Amino acid sequence: MTHDDSRLLGARPVEINDGVLTLIDQRRLPFALEYFRVDDFASLIYAIKEMVVRGAPAIGLAAAWGLALEIGRSEPNGTLIECLRRELIDARPTAVNLRFAADAVASAALSALPDSVSARSAALAAASDLERSLLDANLALSKAGAALIDDGACVLTHCNAGPLATAGYGTALGAIRLAHHGGKKLSVLVDETRPRNQGARLTMYELMGDGIDCHLIADNMSGFFMARGDISMVITGADRIALNGDVANKIGTYNLAVLARHHGIPFYVAAPLSTFDLELSSGMGIPIEYRAVSELLTLDGADHTPAGARALNPAFDITPGTLVTGIVSELGVHTPPYDFAHLKSMYSMA
Amino acid sequence: MTHDDSRLLGARPVEINDGVLTLIDQRRLPFALEYFRVDDFASLIYAIKEMVVRGAPAIGLAAAWGLALEIGRSEPNGTLIECLRRELIDARPTAVNLRFAADAVASAALSALPDSVSARSAALAAASDLERSLLDANLALSKAGAALIDDGACVLTHCNAGPLATAGYGTALGAIRLAHHGGKKLSVLVDETRPRNQGARLTMYELMGDGIDCHLIADNMSGFFMARGDISMVITGADRIALNGDVANKIGTYNLAVLARHHGIPFYVAAPLSTFDLELSSGMGIPIEYRAVSELLTLDGADHTPAGARALNPAFDITPGTLVTGIVSELGVHTPPYDFAHLKSMYSMA
Repeated sequence: MTHDDSRLLGARPVEINDGVLTLIDQRRLPFALEYFRVDDFASLIYAIKEMVVRGAPAIGLAAAWGLALEIGRSEPNGTLIECLRRELIDARPTAVNLRFAADAVASAALSALPDSVSARSAALAAASDLERSLLDANLALSKAGAALIDDGACVLTHCNAGPLATAGYGTALGAIRLAHHGGKKLSVLVDETRPRNQGARLTMYELMGDGIDCHLIADNMSGFFMARGDISMVITGADRIALNGDVANKIGTYNLAVLARHHGIPFYVAAPLSTFDLELSSGMGIPIEYRAVSELLTLDGADHTPAGARALNPAFDITPGTLVTGIVSELGVHTPPYDFAHLKSMYSMA
Repeated sequence: MTHDDSRLLGARPVEINDGVLTLIDQRRLPFALEYFRVDDFASLIYAIKEMVVRGAPAIGLAAAWGLALEIGRSEPNGTLIECLRRELIDARPTAVNLRFAADAVASAALSALPDSVSARSAALAAASDLERSLLDANLALSKAGAALIDDGACVLTHCNAGPLATAGYGTALGAIRLAHHGGKKLSVLVDETRPRNQGARLTMYELMGDGIDCHLIADNMSGFFMARGDISMVITGADRIALNGDVANKIGTYNLAVLARHHGIPFYVAAPLSTFDLELSSGMGIPIEYRAVSELLTLDGADHTPAGARALNPAFDITPGTLVTGIVSELGVHTPPYDFAHLKSMYSMA
């Protein structure tokens, strides 16, 4: 397996350049390709909270490198590392990859203490390991997902789960891209994904960049096209998956899962194992981030509603595992009834 | 029944001032209250196509007055009237109120020919009759709908079915407004309604104007709030209802109906009888208008997607009557199984 094929990997949203963490500013895409330098820990937290970097795996990778570099800049001790780890995890509560990554880097550094030189290099090594395993997982799950997509299929996807979101080949889009590059003829319907429009801005950009036939639709049109028989399958990424297969993902995913079930259309979720929360028995325990209502009350900065209007802005929802036809990870395609408790042994052996 | 209570009626989107048809330009609300003068037939067609006036009943009323005034400006004959009628109906294909109104005015004028003075006054009288019956129907169906709303309910609505849409008290919003004015404590979740944002712009404006507790949500959030048990009922307007209860309404209505059924939440549609198409056995025969994809590809005029992106933009969808808990008209609440064929006798007697 090789990771140096930039066409296959697409954009690199999280990169280390001369020891500096550099992010593609995803708030500006596709209209401008601008980079955001993470000069210190405060700018890392800002970049994650404000969605300069977004997508659960990409957030995890940025957090890993950012934390490792911060430890490298400091005189590390247990209290500091624990404090940084906690602040990172709190930056966005729903996706578990962030916690997974912060824990991996913090643990590596903590276990090398009290020698600060060893702690710094252990943190960097952990971030580097995480990047490599993320890329491996990405390609493996993309292959498993691509096998689910029939030649001639019309695939509906939501939000963005491509290279920008994953710092790799993609998860949901990884499956679509690999099916396309493998010669299957596909078309993709792309949910706009209000209120941040990741589908309109990022998924359209990535699919068009790959030359994949795609059309933007509004989030409220999915049922219309399902009822016409136009949609073969739905595939999305995930921000956290519980032991029973409950999936937290971008708000709107649950609507799609219910609609897909109503129409007898397969509904798949693609995510690396770092998205699985092996401490959670069900989705009930997943915290849902509510973001600023200005995301809904304004449109591209302009007023969208009457002055004084109120809004509710949950950024994620929970899809019960019972509505998910299959969950695609680097281990292959898991099918219901889901019980991921056996995966705990993989980690305890590692 | 009195129609002069401007607080109850709300804004008057379709008005005759000194013999000139004047419309509130609903593209500019809630940011500016501007009026659009319909000086000739071309500007009437423009106003309907471009959604200066929108909402099935309001479109119907604008068409009735616009056609009557055009007949008044011309030397009417059968060919001309038929040509104007046809052009009007083609301006927006999905809502049937437009056809209903154009037919009523054209028939009145045609039956008074060859005397052109009689034809002109018959056309104006037909438009005036239609306005009065629209207001009567509005209030009657609002009362029937309000009775369905429990004290303390949280109601989800989609698009805009208030005074602006109906040139009266409202249909879905009429029920909500009357329940509120009658002293029930309510809260309303308002679907943004992409891509034209009628929920964000118009429904929020009307509900806030009435002091009704309301929050804007994105169209993709409905399932999230239903799953939490936050939503007591869904109520929407309609653009056309077939004999079997199939409902054409703003795109996204069908998603809500499927989601409501999945969660065991009542799903109601409120519409006057002029929205019932007594010539259509099912929703299969309702033409769906596809509007310009620029509505989806741009956001408030600015780029929203990569250059060259494609989109699909159906403006309406069909909800099968089997998913509709009740249809509220001026006759009361109709329940499944729907068969509106008996309504034909009402019209043949009239």
